[in-house]
Amino acid sequence: MSTAEKPKYKVIGTRPIRHDGTDKVTGRAKYGGDVQQTGLLAGVILRSPHAHAKILSIDTTKAMKVPGVRAIATGADLPKAPNEIEELGEGAVNLAHLSRNVLAKEKVLYKGHAVAGVAADTVHAAEEAARLIEVKYEVLPCVLTAPEAMKPGAPILLDDLKTESVAGQTSTGPTNVAKHFHFEKGDVAKGFAEAKVVVEREFHTATVHQGYIEPHNATAFWSADGQITVWMSTQGTFSARHQTALLLDVPVSKVKVVPMEIGGGFGGKISVYLPPVAAILSKKTGRPVKILMDRAACFEATGPTPGCYMKVKIGADAQGKITAAEAYIAFEAGGFPGSPVAAGSMCVFACYDVPNGKVDGYDVVVNKPRTNAYRAPGSTNVAFATETVLDEIAAQLKIDPLEIRIRNTAKEGTRRVDGPVYSRIGMLETVQAIKASEHWRSPLTVGSSSGLNGRGTTRGGSDAKRVKRGRGVASGFWFNAGLKSAVSATLNQDGTVGLLEGSTDIGGSRTGIAMQFAETLGITAEEVVPQVVDTDSIGYTDVTGGSRVTYATGWAAYNAALDIRKQLVERAALLWECPVEKVEFLTDLGNGKGGVKGPDGKSLTVRELAEKVQKHGEPIIGRGVSDKNEPGGAFATTCIDVEVDEDTGKVEVTRVTIAQDAGTAIHPSYVEGQMQGGTVQGIGWGLNEEYFYDKTGVMKNASYLDYRIPTCYDLPMIETIIVEVPNPGHPYGVRGTGEVPIVPPPAALANAIHQAVGVRMTELPMSPPKVLKAILSK
Amino acid sequence: MSTAEKPKYKVIGTRPIRHDGTDKVTGRAKYGGDVQQTGLLAGVILRSPHAHAKILSIDTTKAMKVPGVRAIATGADLPKAPNEIEELGEGAVNLAHLSRNVLAKEKVLYKGHAVAGVAADTVHAAEEAARLIEVKYEVLPCVLTAPEAMKPGAPILLDDLKTESVAGQTSTGPTNVAKHFHFEKGDVAKGFAEAKVVVEREFHTATVHQGYIEPHNATAFWSADGQITVWMSTQGTFSARHQTALLLDVPVSKVKVVPMEIGGGFGGKISVYLPPVAAILSKKTGRPVKILMDRAACFEATGPTPGCYMKVKIGADAQGKITAAEAYIAFEAGGFPGSPVAAGSMCVFACYDVPNGKVDGYDVVVNKPRTNAYRAPGSTNVAFATETVLDEIAAQLKIDPLEIRIRNTAKEGTRRVDGPVYSRIGMLETVQAIKASEHWRSPLTVGSSSGLNGRGTTRGGSDAKRVKRGRGVASGFWFNAGLKSAVSATLNQDGTVGLLEGSTDIGGSRTGIAMQFAETLGITAEEVVPQVVDTDSIGYTDVTGGSRVTYATGWAAYNAALDIRKQLVERAALLWECPVEKVEFLTDLGNGKGGVKGPDGKSLTVRELAEKVQKHGEPIIGRGVSDKNEPGGAFATTCIDVEVDEDTGKVEVTRVTIAQDAGTAIHPSYVEGQMQGGTVQGIGWGLNEEYFYDKTGVMKNASYLDYRIPTCYDLPMIETIIVEVPNPGHPYGVRGTGEVPIVPPPAALANAIHQAVGVRMTELPMSPPKVLKAILSK
Repeated sequence: MSTAEKPKYKVIGTRPIRHDGTDKVTGRAKYGGDVQQTGLLAGVILRSPHAHAKILSIDTTKAMKVPGVRAIATGADLPKAPNEIEELGEGAVNLAHLSRNVLAKEKVLYKGHAVAGVAADTVHAAEEAARLIEVKYEVLPCVLTAPEAMKPGAPILLDDLKTESVAGQTSTGPTNVAKHFHFEKGDVAKGFAEAKVVVEREFHTATVHQGYIEPHNATAFWSADGQITVWMSTQGTFSARHQTALLLDVPVSKVKVVPMEIGGGFGGKISVYLPPVAAILSKKTGRPVKILMDRAACFEATGPTPGCYMKVKIGADAQGKITAAEAYIAFEAGGFPGSPVAAGSMCVFACYDVPNGKVDGYDVVVNKPRTNAYRAPGSTNVAFATETVLDEIAAQLKIDPLEIRIRNTAKEGTRRVDGPVYSRIGMLETVQAIKASEHWRSPLTVGSSSGLNGRGTTRGGSDAKRVKRGRGVASGFWFNAGLKSAVSATLNQDGTVGLLEGSTDIGGSRTGIAMQFAETLGITAEEVVPQVVDTDSIGYTDVTGGSRVTYATGWAAYNAALDIRKQLVERAALLWECPVEKVEFLTDLGNGKGGVKGPDGKSLTVRELAEKVQKHGEPIIGRGVSDKNEPGGAFATTCIDVEVDEDTGKVEVTRVTIAQDAGTAIHPSYVEGQMQGGTVQGIGWGLNEEYFYDKTGVMKNASYLDYRIPTCYDLPMIETIIVEVPNPGHPYGVRGTGEVPIVPPPAALANAIHQAVGVRMTELPMSPPKVLKAILSK
Repeated sequence: MSTAEKPKYKVIGTRPIRHDGTDKVTGRAKYGGDVQQTGLLAGVILRSPHAHAKILSIDTTKAMKVPGVRAIATGADLPKAPNEIEELGEGAVNLAHLSRNVLAKEKVLYKGHAVAGVAADTVHAAEEAARLIEVKYEVLPCVLTAPEAMKPGAPILLDDLKTESVAGQTSTGPTNVAKHFHFEKGDVAKGFAEAKVVVEREFHTATVHQGYIEPHNATAFWSADGQITVWMSTQGTFSARHQTALLLDVPVSKVKVVPMEIGGGFGGKISVYLPPVAAILSKKTGRPVKILMDRAACFEATGPTPGCYMKVKIGADAQGKITAAEAYIAFEAGGFPGSPVAAGSMCVFACYDVPNGKVDGYDVVVNKPRTNAYRAPGSTNVAFATETVLDEIAAQLKIDPLEIRIRNTAKEGTRRVDGPVYSRIGMLETVQAIKASEHWRSPLTVGSSSGLNGRGTTRGGSDAKRVKRGRGVASGFWFNAGLKSAVSATLNQDGTVGLLEGSTDIGGSRTGIAMQFAETLGITAEEVVPQVVDTDSIGYTDVTGGSRVTYATGWAAYNAALDIRKQLVERAALLWECPVEKVEFLTDLGNGKGGVKGPDGKSLTVRELAEKVQKHGEPIIGRGVSDKNEPGGAFATTCIDVEVDEDTGKVEVTRVTIAQDAGTAIHPSYVEGQMQGGTVQGIGWGLNEEYFYDKTGVMKNASYLDYRIPTCYDLPMIETIIVEVPNPGHPYGVRGTGEVPIVPPPAALANAIHQAVGVRMTELPMSPPKVLKAILSK
């Protein structure tokens, strides 16, 4: 960790035990599935067996006769949703689409599309009734990839869809292209003309899932007085509240979302699927209704990340300096528009100083589940293209792959192709950190033979297996987000603080926020009792996503602590009968404790003053809000060693090191955890994970037995190098850390495979059959 | 309702539907007994069969062998509690006594005293095990009344007890008198010498219970990380937290108290009984433990209000003007010190301008459960004495009983015998309101014959029953309290507000607080979503007691609304690009809605501005705290008509009217409810309720079958006259209303009985045997 200019923090940078740790390891933490209510009904969703079909009729007569069945909801029960875009704070959504995604109306657009909800006394009765709902479909031909869907004459999913272009033009006539983004900078033709080397490649990536452990869930109770309460695990209680209110056509304040613990989200738990259905079933029955998805539903009917088609062209001069870059990106939105192609189009060249660039991005509907965010959404896809093309250019120019990156890195002042100019960022530092790393400096053989999982040795000794080693690097970018956060704090008489947060805690944000609060108030992390609360109990807070929580909610906590400091100073002045100006707050009074210092050497620690406050005068509450949007960009560079089995095409990962700019690492263990987790997901995406469809649009591997997520048996320990280039847009220099680590691995793997066996992989996942095929056709 | 000078409020004074109404009438509200937890164990308390005994040994060997038993806790498991007074904010408590009241150590001091707690898989196993705990007692003689306990040679309950005198002297030698309060004003001897009439009487009152519907309960979970969570119904989460933390010897921040809905408290749900035992059992088992009291335990082992012995002497001149007054008051504290005798001693002459007065009050331990607060604690007892003596003086002087009160009422500037000087109060106005009432102006015969329950008519026609009618009046006083409260508020994008409160809601305070907030912010009561939250989620808030919530938490809500107004003004100034000084907040913009007014006639309602705030800038949170202590005194005057059956001594209540000064009635229905409920409890106390003990200290009527609480079959509708003399010590003129209505009824009944049958009752309850005995011995 580089700590050269780091301020002397007392709490920040330490590794306290997480506040929710005991609850989680002892099984006491309550997740969505743990919700129990008196009179609770079980809800089940009937899903479409077809990837594309008209719904001709739904007959629930037989289903309603199943003993124990209480109510059935269909799309007809949802209020009419206007074909309008609604701002959700962290993004916009088309209400008509959102509503139809929750319960289909005229058509089903993907296999697994929700058609009806059933509430019954038992889940068995509900399932039996769901089976007895008679839906008449007119099956239509389906289209599963962006290039196919963009072809003239392709099956059209949404009759009224028009292509919305960033330039303002809107297409006429039926289309599957929902949006066209276009960014341009400089003179691309001139740039390519100046290049010594130009490489252009086409890429395909498969649909992949976030792979959170906990399936989606929601319990809803629609009270007779119109108040709706939803208990669920979600990345954003306020977003879930807003979506639910919109879909049910009630004011937001009529919906209260109570956050349960969340077993992973990674972007997949922002869109609302179950709450409106559970709410309608509750309204019909007067009882609370709980709906749990099974794993197949999570795969088939939530929002995975899009598969895509990309064409990337980069030109560079003899020194490897990029002269021009161009990208064509078509993302599969799934059944409704809304893929992260805009983000992908902004990220595609974001690591580099591209003097002349052009990007076209297309959001294309296909008969797959409506995609959603997945950790740095869009960036992993496009980095696979850019970073392998750059690797090829480096190889052609015989420049070291880290060196070509160093010569091109974006820096403070660099303007991206899509417009924004960077403030102080750490892209260069992450490349330099990898260059200086023990991993990079180790010879490949030794490196892989000493693989941390001990497997390298046997492999290394077994040449009979025709194992080839390679090392690849790649970099990645993610914006990070700011947005709105709120925090409330109450000072206890023992000097501790109760901290209320609106940010649901996926990755340990309770502690990361508490630490920033503690630092500011001169107390310890353990003296803060953080709590994630419902939407009626805290100010509006945007989703836990965009790597924004430690940045934005941390800032709100900083403000709340300042607010308490101000009150403590005022109370001390009252106590000491002196002007407020004579009292100052210090985060360290010299005894390691924060407190107030007054005239004549008087001082009181926070704790001592809290005791006095308890005896005399008003209680002290602090409030802190934040809506800053200078989260600083996040960059990571990853180095991966692989062994490729030339007989089978199997790629074994033997060593991985990631260097990432965290700005300031509030809790280094958490940062490392994010870096490791993201890297592992990127490796899974790169090597194994994919939605495997048959021609009728049926996913054939909708279970964790068949959908291959890497486990700790598959990978070595991920080595981490936290780079700290403080973000000037945050009081403690925080940048987000949660997303960017997923970005480099697929490209780094492809580059390593190339080094090992000399083939350039252009399709994800780089699973054994594809790698073997590439080797054989070399 | 007198509304002469009342400001034009829009929300205050209206009667919106209570926010918790639907939950409560539909059975969805969750009370302490509804708590469910995974792995929940059932806890049971073993209680002493003796009123006074030494504990020689406790053997749990056999009990621990019962299948399903998980742990047993005894007094030895509680940390050593110092014999020290600890301030709890709303009162002080001796820790050694509090601890021993939760689980006895050396001695049991009353029948029902907790001796051990058992946790088991089922309540049946726990009960069986409790039966098998072998406790060896050395039974001691018991003492049940204050006069007996004060006699030389009486059995001594606490060996180390010393009489603490307000004058600072402390007794030596064994005693049952814990405290002696003494107040004096003027020259009492001279005052009596100036009197034309002097009446002195002795009085006895019985122990009575608050009679809440929901028994005490607590569920506790002691996590492996040291955090203790307690779910319970309590009048004060922070008080419960503080007591629990003290008894378990952990910092307050290690305890979180989660308030469940509360089925009545009336002062009886402030002291902690079960949480420390449940917590210790949880620590021993690693599982949550729930303990529910049964009704007998509520009677025998919680804190009823003291029985007492009183001697009151009042002198008056020929015009009925009081010249001197003197009181001797001995309250039964129960097994440990702490009766409300101090309050009783301050209240005894508080309705009147007493030029010369003297009060001696004694807190006396006896072998009964340790008493606790009960609605205007102490005041009902002493009013029974003062108000009947005054009635007798009026009769002797042939002055109308209302007139003698009018001539003597305390007013702004009157100094009480115990010292304080009144600000603007409404005692006189309550007497005048009764004087002007239809009830008072109606002849007794007609009045009683037209009794609202329709029974008067038959009675009136049945002279064979020797029914005599009478009408009595009496007045009462209660201080009301201020203390600390905190409120947090969050502005929603639809202009509604989430309001967090620390005050547990017994009598509808959610709505009373929300209305004051709404009034201040120019929104409707329905646009506020109030929520009572746990101790980690809100600033310190004192108990729901002392009639303080509408006053103090209402004030905190007022401050929170002002805080939001300030922020709205700032945001509007930003929006309109004008100086903050050019924007003002109006609770009515002229369209009935609150909002901001800016230059050039610009204006935005709260709702319109909230929508804009949601789109741009930080979320808005408001905070409000309060620690004001000018709650204004509360006064009530009650008129009761009775029919006394001379054959049986049975007293039938035929008509009741209460006039009470509410300051400002925020929600008149609630105020009326408090007036009616308090009156009914006062009538029960006056006529029927009593702890009926045998000589060994065993309560013989510890069930609602035998402990006679009046029901709606026993009483007519209570008529209410809300008097509104705004409290100058509150922004909306609020006084507390919850307690004082219980004070006058016993005395009013005694005065009515005297008018009916000519006997002066001096003992409560005035049950048929006592009334008959008085009639027969006349």
